[in-house]
Amino acid sequence: MTSSDIFRNSINALKHHSVIPYVPNSHVAKSILLRRQPNKLKVINSQRNDTLPKFFQVDEYKALKAKQINKALDEAVPLRHPAILHEAMRYSLPGGKRLMSTLCIASCEMIGGSQSVAMSMACAIELLVTMAVIQDDLPCLDNDELRRGKPSNYKVFGEATAILACQALHCLAMQHIAMIKAKTVSPDRLLRAMVEINSAVGSEGIAAGQIMDINSEGKEVSLSELNFIHRHKTGKFIEASIVSGVIIGGGNEEETERMRHFGKCVGMAYQLWNDIVDVIGSPEMREKTGRDMMRDKATYPKLVGVDGSKKHAKELIAEAKQELAYFDPSRAAPLDHLVNFIVSFGNNN
Amino acid sequence: MTSSDIFRNSINALKHHSVIPYVPNSHVAKSILLRRQPNKLKVINSQRNDTLPKFFQVDEYKALKAKQINKALDEAVPLRHPAILHEAMRYSLPGGKRLMSTLCIASCEMIGGSQSVAMSMACAIELLVTMAVIQDDLPCLDNDELRRGKPSNYKVFGEATAILACQALHCLAMQHIAMIKAKTVSPDRLLRAMVEINSAVGSEGIAAGQIMDINSEGKEVSLSELNFIHRHKTGKFIEASIVSGVIIGGGNEEETERMRHFGKCVGMAYQLWNDIVDVIGSPEMREKTGRDMMRDKATYPKLVGVDGSKKHAKELIAEAKQELAYFDPSRAAPLDHLVNFIVSFGNNN
Repeated sequence: MTSSDIFRNSINALKHHSVIPYVPNSHVAKSILLRRQPNKLKVINSQRNDTLPKFFQVDEYKALKAKQINKALDEAVPLRHPAILHEAMRYSLPGGKRLMSTLCIASCEMIGGSQSVAMSMACAIELLVTMAVIQDDLPCLDNDELRRGKPSNYKVFGEATAILACQALHCLAMQHIAMIKAKTVSPDRLLRAMVEINSAVGSEGIAAGQIMDINSEGKEVSLSELNFIHRHKTGKFIEASIVSGVIIGGGNEEETERMRHFGKCVGMAYQLWNDIVDVIGSPEMREKTGRDMMRDKATYPKLVGVDGSKKHAKELIAEAKQELAYFDPSRAAPLDHLVNFIVSFGNNN
Repeated sequence: MTSSDIFRNSINALKHHSVIPYVPNSHVAKSILLRRQPNKLKVINSQRNDTLPKFFQVDEYKALKAKQINKALDEAVPLRHPAILHEAMRYSLPGGKRLMSTLCIASCEMIGGSQSVAMSMACAIELLVTMAVIQDDLPCLDNDELRRGKPSNYKVFGEATAILACQALHCLAMQHIAMIKAKTVSPDRLLRAMVEINSAVGSEGIAAGQIMDINSEGKEVSLSELNFIHRHKTGKFIEASIVSGVIIGGGNEEETERMRHFGKCVGMAYQLWNDIVDVIGSPEMREKTGRDMMRDKATYPKLVGVDGSKKHAKELIAEAKQELAYFDPSRAAPLDHLVNFIVSFGNNN
């Protein structure tokens, strides 16, 4: 399905709804609207701030973005010499749901940036996600032999190659960001995005969360300690994916800070829901979280119960949506629907 | 010893020599010269392109730069929460000779940049060197229990923490480069330096060299394969340290490409000499390379003999110096002396 198909569905739906369509790329949407409904454009525009579109196809949107991101990722890691290293880098790329990178693109587009600019950032984000995934599975960390239904990276390529592939993926991600060439994005903004992402991966982000997670196994963990682990292992990276999208999309200071708060709430809700899925989700969805329970890792349902966790996740999503309300609702629609999706049953990875 | 001391020594030496002094910071040096030898300045300047200073104190220069870099590095990695992660990051920082970072600063200064600007880049370089050192010692890679006379990182902190410290050091290095704030360095130049460094660390650099090195153990290795390993494991990083110094120092295209060739030659000579030291060096110097021989890793003396290796190393240094001749000899003096040092007996790490 292409962007045009999504627009076509939206336009068809428009015949039966009085709500505005999702407008990811205004000049395309405008031309479609003008072509199909020349007399209605003004009316539609006047409604922009009144309501969010109800017929936005989040599944189609997600699938389209994932397809486009996968294509870009495939091109991002060429199979060059030394082949074994590049094979290891490529091996763990497929299979992700591309949520972080889709959030980045959606944030960039909401602020007025284009997908072509956001795509390199999105690739960098998925290269880093892949790095984290390979590392996570290593024997000295989670020691997981399976990932996304196939043997984990170190099982296929050995530990040394897996570790070097992580290093190479990190470097490639940085090169992708640094080499974004677009008149609409100043080098200064690229540097800011670089700081955001590295801060979310290093000793103030994923690495910090991982180390606290490892050291808490089998121990009594307080809610504030669990919040620290989840915020650093996952939350900050989700926040950085969103904020970097806003930065390269051209967001001003207020927009960036609002979206930072949005990202913070979404990141925490995501992790809460991940923990909840273990209790209420399907067997497949329980796979990863189930392993965490077996390892006696701390989870939210253990500390505050399933209902308490669900309630808090939904409060966080509501808080996030308050920030979205500041933006044009037609442009904010994808993010609005994506965060609904995050706290929907069993589809949150 | 301060910069002033070095200048004082240079000026004292000037009384007994007819050659020009090293001028790392021309306005300071100029004022010293004017103050002490007001009538000689013109004569001195007219000699600038005739000869290189002979009395440059390379040991003092190296010691001073190392001291300044160590101070900056100590401040670069604060001991914050989670303490164990930051302790692991800091543990492997001391003890390096800071050759790569000194080459970066010397290149930046030669081109007209200031040390204050180069220092963040130098820190980033040493953070990456430290990352590579920690990783190199892991059981699945070189499995070295000792590094710089003390237990290696993973022996003290465990493999998981060592791996996470590597990731965090990489992120911190990127943040250091991205956050350089100087009127004299455009964000565009920082992005270029970022690409240089990451290219030298990832799948076109250290990671590529490491993987080929691992896979060549115990096998017949051709000279071209050995060149690939050494160029990628060490050479490219030395080249990138020099080129990034030139970029942030404000070098134009010709200067950058000349210094790239200079760096390429120096990088290869460095590795050749490292291999030679195993045969002609002191027991302490043989420690690392000796382990490589025991592991049946390929080295230059094995393939082309000690004399052949020495000859080639000196040819490479001569080739490098041809590029240096393009620059003001007084500004090029530190690099000229540093590369002599690289191919001097037993002091090349």
